[in-house]
Amino acid sequence: MVTRTVDLRSDTVTKPTETMRAAMAIAEVDDDVLVYDPTADRLETEMARITGKEAALFVPSGTMGNLISVLVHCEVRGSEVILGDNCHIHIYENGGISTLGGVHPRTVKNNEDGTMDINLIEAAIRDPRGELVYPTTRLICLENTHANCGGRCLPAEYIDRVGELAKKHGLKLHIDGARIFNASIALGVPVHRLLQAADSASVCLSKGLGAPVGSVIVGSKSFIAKARRLRKTLGGGMRQVGIICAAALVALQENIAKLEGDHKKAKILAEGLNQIKGLKVNVTSVETNIVYFEIVEGSNITAEKLCKYLQEHGVLIMPESSSRIRVVLHHQISGTDVQYTLSCIQQAVTGVHDCNGDLKEISV
Amino acid sequence: MVTRTVDLRSDTVTKPTETMRAAMAIAEVDDDVLVYDPTADRLETEMARITGKEAALFVPSGTMGNLISVLVHCEVRGSEVILGDNCHIHIYENGGISTLGGVHPRTVKNNEDGTMDINLIEAAIRDPRGELVYPTTRLICLENTHANCGGRCLPAEYIDRVGELAKKHGLKLHIDGARIFNASIALGVPVHRLLQAADSASVCLSKGLGAPVGSVIVGSKSFIAKARRLRKTLGGGMRQVGIICAAALVALQENIAKLEGDHKKAKILAEGLNQIKGLKVNVTSVETNIVYFEIVEGSNITAEKLCKYLQEHGVLIMPESSSRIRVVLHHQISGTDVQYTLSCIQQAVTGVHDCNGDLKEISV
Amino acid sequence: MVTRTVDLRSDTVTKPTETMRAAMAIAEVDDDVLVYDPTADRLETEMARITGKEAALFVPSGTMGNLISVLVHCEVRGSEVILGDNCHIHIYENGGISTLGGVHPRTVKNNEDGTMDINLIEAAIRDPRGELVYPTTRLICLENTHANCGGRCLPAEYIDRVGELAKKHGLKLHIDGARIFNASIALGVPVHRLLQAADSASVCLSKGLGAPVGSVIVGSKSFIAKARRLRKTLGGGMRQVGIICAAALVALQENIAKLEGDHKKAKILAEGLNQIKGLKVNVTSVETNIVYFEIVEGSNITAEKLCKYLQEHGVLIMPESSSRIRVVLHHQISGTDVQYTLSCIQQAVTGVHDCNGDLKEISV
Amino acid sequence: MVTRTVDLRSDTVTKPTETMRAAMAIAEVDDDVLVYDPTADRLETEMARITGKEAALFVPSGTMGNLISVLVHCEVRGSEVILGDNCHIHIYENGGISTLGGVHPRTVKNNEDGTMDINLIEAAIRDPRGELVYPTTRLICLENTHANCGGRCLPAEYIDRVGELAKKHGLKLHIDGARIFNASIALGVPVHRLLQAADSASVCLSKGLGAPVGSVIVGSKSFIAKARRLRKTLGGGMRQVGIICAAALVALQENIAKLEGDHKKAKILAEGLNQIKGLKVNVTSVETNIVYFEIVEGSNITAEKLCKYLQEHGVLIMPESSSRIRVVLHHQISGTDVQYTLSCIQQAVTGVHDCNGDLKEISV
Repeated sequence: MVTRTVDLRSDTVTKPTETMRAAMAIAEVDDDVLVYDPTADRLETEMARITGKEAALFVPSGTMGNLISVLVHCEVRGSEVILGDNCHIHIYENGGISTLGGVHPRTVKNNEDGTMDINLIEAAIRDPRGELVYPTTRLICLENTHANCGGRCLPAEYIDRVGELAKKHGLKLHIDGARIFNASIALGVPVHRLLQAADSASVCLSKGLGAPVGSVIVGSKSFIAKARRLRKTLGGGMRQVGIICAAALVALQENIAKLEGDHKKAKILAEGLNQIKGLKVNVTSVETNIVYFEIVEGSNITAEKLCKYLQEHGVLIMPESSSRIRVVLHHQISGTDVQYTLSCIQQAVTGVHDCNGDLKEISV
Repeated sequence: MVTRTVDLRSDTVTKPTETMRAAMAIAEVDDDVLVYDPTADRLETEMARITGKEAALFVPSGTMGNLISVLVHCEVRGSEVILGDNCHIHIYENGGISTLGGVHPRTVKNNEDGTMDINLIEAAIRDPRGELVYPTTRLICLENTHANCGGRCLPAEYIDRVGELAKKHGLKLHIDGARIFNASIALGVPVHRLLQAADSASVCLSKGLGAPVGSVIVGSKSFIAKARRLRKTLGGGMRQVGIICAAALVALQENIAKLEGDHKKAKILAEGLNQIKGLKVNVTSVETNIVYFEIVEGSNITAEKLCKYLQEHGVLIMPESSSRIRVVLHHQISGTDVQYTLSCIQQAVTGVHDCNGDLKEISV
Repeated sequence: MVTRTVDLRSDTVTKPTETMRAAMAIAEVDDDVLVYDPTADRLETEMARITGKEAALFVPSGTMGNLISVLVHCEVRGSEVILGDNCHIHIYENGGISTLGGVHPRTVKNNEDGTMDINLIEAAIRDPRGELVYPTTRLICLENTHANCGGRCLPAEYIDRVGELAKKHGLKLHIDGARIFNASIALGVPVHRLLQAADSASVCLSKGLGAPVGSVIVGSKSFIAKARRLRKTLGGGMRQVGIICAAALVALQENIAKLEGDHKKAKILAEGLNQIKGLKVNVTSVETNIVYFEIVEGSNITAEKLCKYLQEHGVLIMPESSSRIRVVLHHQISGTDVQYTLSCIQQAVTGVHDCNGDLKEISV
Repeated sequence: MVTRTVDLRSDTVTKPTETMRAAMAIAEVDDDVLVYDPTADRLETEMARITGKEAALFVPSGTMGNLISVLVHCEVRGSEVILGDNCHIHIYENGGISTLGGVHPRTVKNNEDGTMDINLIEAAIRDPRGELVYPTTRLICLENTHANCGGRCLPAEYIDRVGELAKKHGLKLHIDGARIFNASIALGVPVHRLLQAADSASVCLSKGLGAPVGSVIVGSKSFIAKARRLRKTLGGGMRQVGIICAAALVALQENIAKLEGDHKKAKILAEGLNQIKGLKVNVTSVETNIVYFEIVEGSNITAEKLCKYLQEHGVLIMPESSSRIRVVLHHQISGTDVQYTLSCIQQAVTGVHDCNGDLKEISV
């Protein structure tokens, strides 16, 4: 009988804490669409402060945050955006920037560390002299941490260089900072420093930070004014939204500090997995809370079978392909959960250990 | 000194009740985007039941509910939708169906009661033989109650006739039912009967029903499957959304019954306004919770001045034009608030009464 | 046996004259997409001169001319255009401005004479203070002559007033001048005067002017620069386009003078039709080359039957509805063709005359 | 004094021959938008026959041909197309498929020979099980010959394999066959064989075939019916289009046979360039009428300077970058022109020869 559930599918599965629920229960609210909501306003002010931007806007999701940001920067028909070929906007957001916004994406290869070569970015910028046949490049997008590249962090210096390139060509820079707090903690660099070169950023509150719902986009006042209007067009304006913003404010207060533990647990998990014969992890690439591991060729287990086995033992993981699996740590995964998970995986792969055995809580 | 605030700008200003807050504080939640959220699921099941449809989907706003519905029915490029020239989708939703969805609107004149003449609707349907130069008509939209037409109700028989017309021409019928519960109460006809002929509907939970956030769209299973995907594209998928769905479930339980009182208060307000010299209200057209009144020509007060005066006395109303004002009743407006409002308006218009005088609560 | 063909379906059916064919056979050409074509350049220069605008651009059709014009003026996402509910752009161009361009149309009722009430246009302009829920009005479109309103002419003074309104609100004015030369001839006012208040116009060369292919759009240099780019995006850039521009230059030289005859023939036809018992024409409304006539109720012939009968006698006309028929005159319809047509119609409707009888050519 | 002009900028610069002009002068025409034009019909019938497809449609340009094809296959909102990262549609068509059509492009690396690895294409196809976050892959595009890859030919077997992959996944295959006749001649394989696996193709008549204007798209009857409608929406429907179709019919009769000579001249030019010290050409990669050459590093001439020098001597070429130049052969370039060009380039690069010297015509 399964008694323990270890949900490692994503850090989006984090559930609101008691403090959050208490804050929501007493949140001061008003109609944020008609005029403004005081708690949303507090959250937006706080996020503008943390990110070092003039203004902020709460949105229902990171997808909407990115969509609005791209569409505001590319408000003129015939715009092109340069972005990584492996980034979240290009791969996991339904192609919304084209489908809904008519923006043409131009991809540059993402390196393993989530960066794109600066010279490749520059080569992808359209020469304005060829505008008769070219769309107009208006925006570069970065992602930090880069989810599909294993949660790798883009350092401030790299971002600055992309920012300089953007400025040189009159382009805007947007950062998909869904997990920018993870990058900040891992790099030991404040969030506002990581976003210094960015004209806009989206930051998620419902991933590692554990708020139930929502992201925030930040930028200049004029950017946010346009974003607010577009949020309404998309249907993302919400009435007494202060309820959920109250939880997000708690997330900012209580959960940023927990991210470091998530990263440590990820490292422990990565190292543990790497010691299991038949699995392979690039341990040094585990910089934050995401761990990708491979089932080596010739193994007699597939990713699908492994995940099915784990599910039967209460460990929820989703396969990425037949041999690649992603695991995401968050503050509701304990050190014991990590050990339990390792134990289950080892059993599944090698058949040696008993993953229902006695486990001691391990502090991280 | 103002001690009383009477917010009549819209029924969207309703704030969550204590019961709602309590429900949110204990709501069972999960990741609704990754898989499903149990409370959202309960809400959607309940809304499907109430509306007599196969399936339902929670969305952040009525605007998104309408946008998704129109775009799902008009998923093929080159679609046209027939809708009232005074309806919410056409006037107040940023033109999103065209701006984001490329759908071409064809308007038909809204009569004073919110209907469109059936023969005018039929005349607006494009002849498929002219498809070389015509877009393809794919959808008819109705609005019930019709906000811009004073909250008038479309009776079931009218809707049925439009539904038959739609079927005859192979079109879909969507109902913007932001205030369908108001129509249901006013007409004494169940919601599912009013939506019987509709292929889809959006229903708002954060207007008269008083939930803090959200609307629900309903339709067939295949419609909702497509809607769920489009919700993700728009960025309307929310993680632990059960928090706000919990409040919506309370709204369904506790607040439907209150709508009748809102309608009575609207009638009392309308009759009171009509007795003030210099104001004009079509009292018989006040069927639900919305009251429009006109400042008659030759009056020495403008709508703007009146609203400013009222604001100073704690009564919040927004002018529609220089001589037309909309007032919306809801469950957080008491009978005393109505009398106080009438008293303030009378004073502003005629200078006779004292709107700070003693007021007794009036039961409605 | 039918020996005579009278094609009254449209003035688009005009075929290139011998002079045009000769001009095409010797036209100097180059690659108009790569750099420029000398004959296209001559045509554009001439059209800019005639219309009193800075620059001009040849396009494959009037539909593309209007589409490009609307999209250039509405290049920012979230734009709305005000246009007549009965105008060509709204009714007969596949909804392309929305379908391809995402522009939201807002219609104003077209009066019988093709105008829209100035105060209704002004009322349709969105208040910028409501931009959170409104699209942004950016353009007003007029049509002159107005095809669906029977080829009626908008006088210069009316256009000027709309132009002033547009300026007052910071909007652009586009004129669909597919038949602006007809308006010019009928009003006795030069084309440049009729377009004086317009920021752009499309002018058709392949209708009454008889060129085989094409329209020209005119406007400021910066408008045309954007239009040229958008023409490329749409695929309307053509290589050695001078071939067809050569015919258009002949059309400008030889066929403008013929329009007056077309109008006279239209008047003769209208008067003749009006004398046929069972038909009804508003003769005074026939200002140019388009004649609409109605089959009065109670008649024992339908529009479809009439057109079929006429087709068997070599007269090509298309019914608009079961009782309404449009006839379009052009320079390849002779006075005798008009008499023959009247004779055939009379025979069809009343059974009296023989439409194969002897006909004398009548000079108009 | 320059007396010779050698225009090598593109094969789009070809001018209509005397036979074409004569054919245009007597072409039988009618209104192709209203009903049909007999010469357009003949051209379309002939192109359908040549390409082995059910139906064909004349369009003003290759850009419109590709745009229409992609939009017809991707008529449902949320579509993704897989195409080469270096292909014409992605690089040189203004991003129109997204900008106007909302289609999301997913690029796969183009190999030097214009192919994309089959397994990379397959990896780029979206898993329908992930449709909540993925757009729907609906189309694969190939380009044959591949312009940016130096006019390389895709062999029939490769195309077949891509076609099988498309079928396996329920996708359509479109071939941008702007220069498919060049591929056919170079490979010695009939056009219909090269298009056998394709659901649609665009074929250009105004490049190597030398017609003044136009392309043709081919496919099934239902594809062409949708394409015809979309052509009208884009404004690509043209009235008496038979005029230019007449020239295209001559092009098919007279100029296909000339392509082999263009390829030979390209080879001669490539070999000649490769013998000039300071220049580099991959001679074996010159399969058709396009030659790319590089100025080797350390040379004391730039591409820009070289092109300027050549222009002064009547040779028109456009630089691609500071060190890369593209030259395109066509039937209006003689063998002597090739020798003259080589001579001028040699002089510019090495200063040895006199490019105004006596030249004998060389037969190819």
